[in-house]
Amino acid sequence: MIETPYLLFLGDAPDQLAAKVAQGIKDWRPENAVGQFRMEGCKADLGLTDMTLAEAKAAGAKTLVIGVANRGGLISQDWKKVLVAALEEGFDLASGLHNLLRDEPDLVAVAEATGRTLHDVRIPSVKYPIANGVKRTGKRCLAVGTDCSVGKMYTALAMDAAMRERGMKSTFRATGQTGILITGDGVPLDAVIADFMAGSIEYLTPDNDADHWDLIEGQGSLFHVSYSGVTMALVHGGQPDALILCHEPTRPHMRGLPGYSLPSLEELRDVALKLAQVGNPACVVVGISVNTQHMSDEEASAYLAKLEADMGLPATDPFRYGADKLVDALAAL
Amino acid sequence: MIETPYLLFLGDAPDQLAAKVAQGIKDWRPENAVGQFRMEGCKADLGLTDMTLAEAKAAGAKTLVIGVANRGGLISQDWKKVLVAALEEGFDLASGLHNLLRDEPDLVAVAEATGRTLHDVRIPSVKYPIANGVKRTGKRCLAVGTDCSVGKMYTALAMDAAMRERGMKSTFRATGQTGILITGDGVPLDAVIADFMAGSIEYLTPDNDADHWDLIEGQGSLFHVSYSGVTMALVHGGQPDALILCHEPTRPHMRGLPGYSLPSLEELRDVALKLAQVGNPACVVVGISVNTQHMSDEEASAYLAKLEADMGLPATDPFRYGADKLVDALAAL
Repeated sequence: MIETPYLLFLGDAPDQLAAKVAQGIKDWRPENAVGQFRMEGCKADLGLTDMTLAEAKAAGAKTLVIGVANRGGLISQDWKKVLVAALEEGFDLASGLHNLLRDEPDLVAVAEATGRTLHDVRIPSVKYPIANGVKRTGKRCLAVGTDCSVGKMYTALAMDAAMRERGMKSTFRATGQTGILITGDGVPLDAVIADFMAGSIEYLTPDNDADHWDLIEGQGSLFHVSYSGVTMALVHGGQPDALILCHEPTRPHMRGLPGYSLPSLEELRDVALKLAQVGNPACVVVGISVNTQHMSDEEASAYLAKLEADMGLPATDPFRYGADKLVDALAAL
Repeated sequence: MIETPYLLFLGDAPDQLAAKVAQGIKDWRPENAVGQFRMEGCKADLGLTDMTLAEAKAAGAKTLVIGVANRGGLISQDWKKVLVAALEEGFDLASGLHNLLRDEPDLVAVAEATGRTLHDVRIPSVKYPIANGVKRTGKRCLAVGTDCSVGKMYTALAMDAAMRERGMKSTFRATGQTGILITGDGVPLDAVIADFMAGSIEYLTPDNDADHWDLIEGQGSLFHVSYSGVTMALVHGGQPDALILCHEPTRPHMRGLPGYSLPSLEELRDVALKLAQVGNPACVVVGISVNTQHMSDEEASAYLAKLEADMGLPATDPFRYGADKLVDALAAL
């Protein structure tokens, strides 16, 4: 568990896109973002107050989060000056970079001397159990995709936000680096040892109030041959009551796999539901989330209307049109 | 890669069953088993020549394999005397125990001093790639089960043996500890990091002759909620041309999961084939392997005959009736 709120470190980000993680924190957990720290030459700006370390500390920030990715995921010497100063100022550090904080001896030494914690969210910090399949109380929703990177995390975060707004009991459960940094907690599923994958998701989504929903961040796709095992562990470890199908209609082939075409939404529905019902026979598919960023408003509307007619399920693009249709479907269960 | 042949260490095995790994080596790779080493009080006997370390060394043995499991999977002080002496005699050590050889400082020190290798086959020794899904030459057969421990490894080993006997090109590809010790090579799939599971199976079953078959050891089950992610990675990373369905008809529930009933063979066929065809559209189900150990000969014959009629696939118990029916089906492809 990473201590919140954060000071968001944007470093010397070459452009706005490089600060994607920080942007996600600001968009989805603005209460976690006290301010931003930018170095000379930084080309990203979240519109937050620029703060020195001392100012952020005084404003209550507990952790400096590296909210920026640079080429190769490396921690540069320039960054290190700030990171060391932050530790000395009393901040913990959190990072999702490939270059682990714990692999930098100078950062480790200063963290030890100052009693601060280094959070590398790519690496599990828990010894997860093997899944036991025991039915848990509370409800769970999982987004499954026809492919990787079709908007599963966005869908779950948007639904979680809409549900909180309505006063429904809901928790977004992060299973990837960005999600973990946004919420301060979660399971870095792609880095978990195979035997413990499903168990890590049981651990992440424990017994809860009967009317509480866990919105579980999806990963990969059952149809993506590189990562389908990870997805499978979510489908069984997550014990979902509800599935949301996620899709990006203009993609020419599976991400990173030329020659592999995307499955249809019908195929995804049938396979994912069949497998999910092994863990929870009551599981149902409740709606479809479409990433329409490459379609005009007219195209998107027509596409969604046709999907609703063809599949008999509510379909929307939560980024473009809000997540209400999907939340209505959950609420109606 | 573990150097063969082996001296099989049976230690102070409390009974024959405790020496299951050694028995597997002797049954399936007798050419790898130079002799057995038994301590005082050992209750297991493989019928191999009892040898001292020096005798085994003179007979050409390269590695002392711990072919016995004891309570808790621990390496006892009594064992260590033998293990240290073996290193000093010039043997490598290989073990599938939970208690890793590398976690015993005295063994590590002696191994370093003598220049010998400690093989802990529970732990991957390779940095596997992420799967790329590129079609590989040669053919692959994967055994998938309605449950864990229904005879998938036995089926693949028996088919591999029958194929070699016929002069077919075949390699058993181990994906678990016992299989790795039997053959001296393989991937300990349950210990691989999630993101690299499918890639480890691509690595294990590379391009080969067009008429060569990899017989891939199955793990878990697509219907076992604790381990299904591991199975999924085999189905996609293995890119199988042929699936064998494995089943144990008398099991009351999924192994370790009271309340979870086994799927039917029809359900397994449909789900496994659908998913396998994502990675290899030409994949087919070629036969059924049934573990009939809890059935009379009459019951077993009747059950297999009914299965063949109902499913239109050859069905046998390779332990009881040989693997020829299954190999015939592969050969006919």
